[in-house]
Amino acid sequence: MGHAHAQGFGSRAAGRVLLAAALGACGLRGDEGMWTFDNLPVQRMQASYGFAPDRAWLEHVRLATLRLPGGSGAFVSRDGLVLTNHHIAHAWIERIADAGHDYVKDGFVAQDRRHELRVPGLEARTLMATENVTEALRAAVSAACGTAGEDAARRAILARMIQAAERRTGFASEPVVLYQGGETWIYSYAVHSDVRLVLAPEYGVAAFGREWDNFTFPRHDLDFALFRVYEQGVPYHPPQFLRWARTGLRAGDLTVVVGHPGRTARQETLAQLEATRDVLDPLRLRDLDRQRQALRDFAAQGPEPARLVSAQLLNLENSCKIYRNEIAGLQDVQAMARVAAAERELREQVAADPVLRASAGSSWDRVAEAVRTRLGCARESAMLTGRGSRALAFAQGLVRWKVQAARPESERELGYRSGRDEAQLRAALGFGEVLEAGVEQASLAGGLAQALAELGPAHPLAAALLEGRDPGDRARELVTRTRLLRPEVRRGWIAASPAEVLASPDPMLVLARKLEALAGPYRRLEAASDAVLAEHGARIARARFALRGRTEYPDATFSLRLSYGAVASCPANGTRVQPFTTFGGLFDRADGWGAQAEGGAWALPPRWRLRRPRLDPSTPFNFISSNDIIGGNSGSPVLDRQGELVGLVFDGNLGEIPGRFYYDSQVNRAVSLDARAILAAMTLVYDAPDLVAELLAAP
Amino acid sequence: MGHAHAQGFGSRAAGRVLLAAALGACGLRGDEGMWTFDNLPVQRMQASYGFAPDRAWLEHVRLATLRLPGGSGAFVSRDGLVLTNHHIAHAWIERIADAGHDYVKDGFVAQDRRHELRVPGLEARTLMATENVTEALRAAVSAACGTAGEDAARRAILARMIQAAERRTGFASEPVVLYQGGETWIYSYAVHSDVRLVLAPEYGVAAFGREWDNFTFPRHDLDFALFRVYEQGVPYHPPQFLRWARTGLRAGDLTVVVGHPGRTARQETLAQLEATRDVLDPLRLRDLDRQRQALRDFAAQGPEPARLVSAQLLNLENSCKIYRNEIAGLQDVQAMARVAAAERELREQVAADPVLRASAGSSWDRVAEAVRTRLGCARESAMLTGRGSRALAFAQGLVRWKVQAARPESERELGYRSGRDEAQLRAALGFGEVLEAGVEQASLAGGLAQALAELGPAHPLAAALLEGRDPGDRARELVTRTRLLRPEVRRGWIAASPAEVLASPDPMLVLARKLEALAGPYRRLEAASDAVLAEHGARIARARFALRGRTEYPDATFSLRLSYGAVASCPANGTRVQPFTTFGGLFDRADGWGAQAEGGAWALPPRWRLRRPRLDPSTPFNFISSNDIIGGNSGSPVLDRQGELVGLVFDGNLGEIPGRFYYDSQVNRAVSLDARAILAAMTLVYDAPDLVAELLAAP
Repeated sequence: MGHAHAQGFGSRAAGRVLLAAALGACGLRGDEGMWTFDNLPVQRMQASYGFAPDRAWLEHVRLATLRLPGGSGAFVSRDGLVLTNHHIAHAWIERIADAGHDYVKDGFVAQDRRHELRVPGLEARTLMATENVTEALRAAVSAACGTAGEDAARRAILARMIQAAERRTGFASEPVVLYQGGETWIYSYAVHSDVRLVLAPEYGVAAFGREWDNFTFPRHDLDFALFRVYEQGVPYHPPQFLRWARTGLRAGDLTVVVGHPGRTARQETLAQLEATRDVLDPLRLRDLDRQRQALRDFAAQGPEPARLVSAQLLNLENSCKIYRNEIAGLQDVQAMARVAAAERELREQVAADPVLRASAGSSWDRVAEAVRTRLGCARESAMLTGRGSRALAFAQGLVRWKVQAARPESERELGYRSGRDEAQLRAALGFGEVLEAGVEQASLAGGLAQALAELGPAHPLAAALLEGRDPGDRARELVTRTRLLRPEVRRGWIAASPAEVLASPDPMLVLARKLEALAGPYRRLEAASDAVLAEHGARIARARFALRGRTEYPDATFSLRLSYGAVASCPANGTRVQPFTTFGGLFDRADGWGAQAEGGAWALPPRWRLRRPRLDPSTPFNFISSNDIIGGNSGSPVLDRQGELVGLVFDGNLGEIPGRFYYDSQVNRAVSLDARAILAAMTLVYDAPDLVAELLAAP
Repeated sequence: MGHAHAQGFGSRAAGRVLLAAALGACGLRGDEGMWTFDNLPVQRMQASYGFAPDRAWLEHVRLATLRLPGGSGAFVSRDGLVLTNHHIAHAWIERIADAGHDYVKDGFVAQDRRHELRVPGLEARTLMATENVTEALRAAVSAACGTAGEDAARRAILARMIQAAERRTGFASEPVVLYQGGETWIYSYAVHSDVRLVLAPEYGVAAFGREWDNFTFPRHDLDFALFRVYEQGVPYHPPQFLRWARTGLRAGDLTVVVGHPGRTARQETLAQLEATRDVLDPLRLRDLDRQRQALRDFAAQGPEPARLVSAQLLNLENSCKIYRNEIAGLQDVQAMARVAAAERELREQVAADPVLRASAGSSWDRVAEAVRTRLGCARESAMLTGRGSRALAFAQGLVRWKVQAARPESERELGYRSGRDEAQLRAALGFGEVLEAGVEQASLAGGLAQALAELGPAHPLAAALLEGRDPGDRARELVTRTRLLRPEVRRGWIAASPAEVLASPDPMLVLARKLEALAGPYRRLEAASDAVLAEHGARIARARFALRGRTEYPDATFSLRLSYGAVASCPANGTRVQPFTTFGGLFDRADGWGAQAEGGAWALPPRWRLRRPRLDPSTPFNFISSNDIIGGNSGSPVLDRQGELVGLVFDGNLGEIPGRFYYDSQVNRAVSLDARAILAAMTLVYDAPDLVAELLAAP
């Protein structure tokens, strides 16, 4: 990419109506919303950006995009190349690593199509058809029964509808419940199950800055991977694929993100948010902090202990970052005032309508009451989880399963019934590694100390966990005496009968049985509270839907959505951060840290150091935009108004973390990889001219 | 600079004892302290870094360093070149701009020595001699008088001592009161008053990121300027000058900062800090926020209004940043717990000593009481300041001066007596520009609205300010009718008699007279509270000094200090920030923002865009270190253990802002310009090979 071409990508004066014009236009803030394709805010988009997609645009994009396990992706060539994030591909790449090849660390570039590597188990789905069955379902349910048994009837009728859809469309179909029950749809997907790895950058540049940089910007991650879909052994020709944009993005340009956002909780009531802010998140954060301290102390013993827990510590840092920023978001006075005002307005509207008042008028109070119930057992529920020990977590999972398995199937809890449930339990418990005794002990000691601090020594759960001992001593005793650190021992217990498990003298299993015996009342309280929250949350949502209908967007449900926005700076780190970063910034950080710092978190792979002179430092690398996204959007294409690919979403910033609960246009930003950086890297670092030609080929 | 040379500057494993070793060694935290040369923490430095300067090292460095107006500097060549910050030089460069040359915007490089530009009024001072007169003063004072009149006697005796020192040394001498009166010194300076500008970068690269980036890191500012000292028309040969280091800094390396930190308040009591945190700073912040909103609304009217207030808005943003982070620092639970624990310990030690108890045992309570008094009139004191209008501020200053001038000299307040006082008042009021009516009106309307909000409409001050009107109407009336917007009118009033001023019907002067009449009681309360704070603050400090003596460092007094530390990353922006930035990072931000963004705040000067291909992007540019610094340290040299120049302090990070009150080794960082970047810029951008040769010449 020439220097002159890249210059000035930081601004484009014309071509977009100012963001400010969109603010205050309605209850939504700025570019808020993860919209279903059948219900786009066309007028708002036109008012803000002078653009709204038409039917052909949407059809093309829908057929070109994909749902992947945990994320999103898109077809980007006639021959079925699929673009997604490296972090979505990561675990799959790990699986196909063969002897002598670490494709995660070293990256992978297929020499030609014959060398593309099949990834067993990886599926990609294209949404082929959608059907709104709300009315049909309602009619069928009311014809079939009265109020009693309605739920079971609904499930059965919906299951039949899905089977019918599968027969009719020939595609895998699933229900999509929008607006907390306001609408029910059936979405039908073409499932592609021969997916092969074509190109993956090295982990060191795909996740430059590792977990340290997660949720931050300025950012410098080449977080992409290329797969190819095959059908019957030959490359698949998708009905549509995204063209690579020929003109690059500039600050202020419209960005459309199409993908599968996972879950949001934007309909939660103020009482729920306050409970999360004041009790639940701080409780989790204290537990994580204790765990982190325990592992830091362990790591301080020397280089080998430090190595053993480094990945776990980074994960903990990252979880702490999420909870801290979630709490900070819920402590934002202005944001919470907006949430409170919106709730007040809705309650008044519900109160003013006799029908809605009858169904949902008391729901906010019922939710608040259920929240109080939930908070009453929050500490116990939290302290019932593995306490930092994977061996104890295994023991608890095993005991709960075997206790259920000892009962007749009809008396078992949900999740412990079918053969499929059993297969899932086996998979969850069947991790293969030897557990390191030192790590287990340090982590468990921290977890036990936290239980003691939260519950006090007299609490029955604390008594079971500690048996009156010092947390360190108790952890040492449990970890030294258990045999569950070894995978073959755990495999043996998975195969064992309930009676054998329930009689074992292994101290971890003994403890797990005591905890299982104590857990009942807390689980019942939690289940009762959850049922009320679900029931009255849905009543509120349905009232809201009755009043506002489709002027609003439904909470995310890992189904296809469109979010629009613009490339836009935001305040961070005491200043405003630039909308784009460049390859120059990548090297700035690598140079400025040095290869050794923080375990090589900002060390560049050899190929990047070698090829540095070839690269134009002003090549746009990552950018931020005001699109409203959430986990699951990872790997979503970023499109311009022509529907052409300009970027690839891979993260949000710190201001996106509270996006689970609300969208704040001032600080919430999607973080994306610029499409130009992908091409430059493929051309100048990965020597993949054939693939680049394939991506740039005219359709 | 070759690529290979620069590579790996981000880390150096050996050569330094870990920071952690220094923590917990005593009450001081990490690299805390701005130490006087006569009292360095030699053992702590040795323990932390395996190095402490000897007498020759200190003598060399003392004679090579300089105090400049508002900052610090150093001799860096045999022929008297002086290195300091661009932002210290800025106002002086502005003054010497001649017709057709904007040396601030375009920079300045003297072609040769004949083209170096004399800067009238700029003085640089070298500390030549210091004398501890504590005992001599005490003896002389106790010989001269009893307790009554002690203060006046002390002042007179000290003045005589200073005159004697000037006669003896031949140098300009001044008193330096350390440990709040625990020690009194006389410092004698060689004063250099022929100082000429040699080289200044363009403002756009010296202050890249403008006020936005102040107090932040990663940073990319070429914040240096070169002057030369002349004596009798020829370059001065200083007794000592700093050599340029031949090996560059790496992460973890020792950094010694020598300079003149301005003022700290680390001896303030918890009651004072809490008042600042809970009342005084929030009050200032609310006022600044309102002002900012008023100017933003004004700027939103169009490009010309936006241009008119852009500098003022940036200043306001910056002030808000300081207060917000000062408050955040004072809200830091752990930091405040440390402050409280230290205070508790000191109070207990004082209580246990009969002599100290008698002098300072009740001082904390007296301070707390005075703080409460001060808080009682805090709103009024704040609302008595100009309310955002420079015309009103002029009117208030003028009226107060003329009211005092109407009295016999002995009855006037301090600051309104001598001819020198009068000259200062004239200078302060004599600003030359035409005040823009629209800006004045918008800003005053905001200020009046804030007074109304703080005081309520019934308060006499609010009544005087608003006269029962709407803030916008009242501001319009005042600004429309006053003639004080014009400089010639203001000059006329400065020359006018008190009687004329006190009779003027100009509405701003009428308002200023009303405010002056109302101000008395609040000023008296404030003065009484200040006197108690000074008296009992000093008692506490003297008790502390009696107990701890010179194991601690005195508060900053704009006198020569040494601070040691190391190049060290810190947490920021949700991750850890790199210890160094590079030229590559400068271009990354310029590219990533584009030249137009935020009024060109990150736009590079033409010379830098042109010379970009010549520059090695991995050249170290700015770095952070754990040195304990404060305003006044701007322009301080950063030295390695050889006493050679490795950098130039120009700012602190966000974590340095609470450094006024306490030092936190985890987050407080000095921000410096790397010496290698200065050489590279002079060589490759400013074409100054002769100057570079002069800097690198052997002594």
